[in-house]
Amino acid sequence: MTASRSFGIDPGLGRLGFGVVERNGGVLKVLDFGCIETPPRVDIPKRLLLLYERLEERIVFHAPDFLCVERLFFGKNITTAEYVFQARGIVLLLAAQKRIPVYEPKPSQIKSVVCGYGNAEKAQVQKMVQRLLSLDVLPKPDDAADALAAALTGLLLQKTSSLLPREGGVS
Amino acid sequence: MTASRSFGIDPGLGRLGFGVVERNGGVLKVLDFGCIETPPRVDIPKRLLLLYERLEERIVFHAPDFLCVERLFFGKNITTAEYVFQARGIVLLLAAQKRIPVYEPKPSQIKSVVCGYGNAEKAQVQKMVQRLLSLDVLPKPDDAADALAAALTGLLLQKTSSLLPREGGVS
Repeated sequence: MTASRSFGIDPGLGRLGFGVVERNGGVLKVLDFGCIETPPRVDIPKRLLLLYERLEERIVFHAPDFLCVERLFFGKNITTAEYVFQARGIVLLLAAQKRIPVYEPKPSQIKSVVCGYGNAEKAQVQKMVQRLLSLDVLPKPDDAADALAAALTGLLLQKTSSLLPREGGVS
Repeated sequence: MTASRSFGIDPGLGRLGFGVVERNGGVLKVLDFGCIETPPRVDIPKRLLLLYERLEERIVFHAPDFLCVERLFFGKNITTAEYVFQARGIVLLLAAQKRIPVYEPKPSQIKSVVCGYGNAEKAQVQKMVQRLLSLDVLPKPDDAADALAAALTGLLLQKTSSLLPREGGVS
């Protein structure tokens, strides 16, 4: 069986978490994780461009088989949603430009795959990410840990039909 | 006085309206308007890429002095917001890549500049767009008319301080 490389992303404008995990047979290995940050005093278009350029660099470097980006659900916090969705648009555009498939698991799907149940707490998810990836310490910051959890979910669900690229959508 | 060229955009994933207006002294002239559409059956990343490529083509062709993109305010319709904001992220990225300033007037600002009062009806805005730009018929579809209204607003407010690129924002 050939190795499979998953690039997980926790999108955000101020801070975008990423995590790259490779599965080779039954062995999971972290290749990279961290955050891309953009300065708050810079205007939004330039911040999106910074995200685009730095994320492109990471994606080209790691040449993943697929991206895994958590679906976002906002309640009333539509102000934050604006920036996060704009950052998310950049991630999806890059995926299409590089012809890399994108998987978009729901938060409950990630928790279910990583922890065994869909209502797991954030801290439990992080603990399991650390354990599954044999890391000495909890991955920090949270955004990087969340990205690793997404990357893991992509690998663990890869051969099932429960994780397919989303089609269509409204205008 | 040199001519000033404004590229207005009404963002959307399924249909993005655009309108290009030039002001030369006191004369306003429409150079182009229309819509970029993406097929609903194609996956979201590819639709964003289609938007990106077609919009880039239009922007490079017209070489505007600035873009003008209406700010979006969503109530509870967060589902639509996801796609529109992702499309909007593509627009802002392109602006930064081409080093073109972006103005983001509020809907009330557009109505106020085009019609004289901030609570104008959509139909009144369209009628005034037609009149100010000396068009024989109402611009269709609505998305193109809205984009022309945004372009006009940029030109008419250009030399005032009431329309500045937004800075910062949350993560």
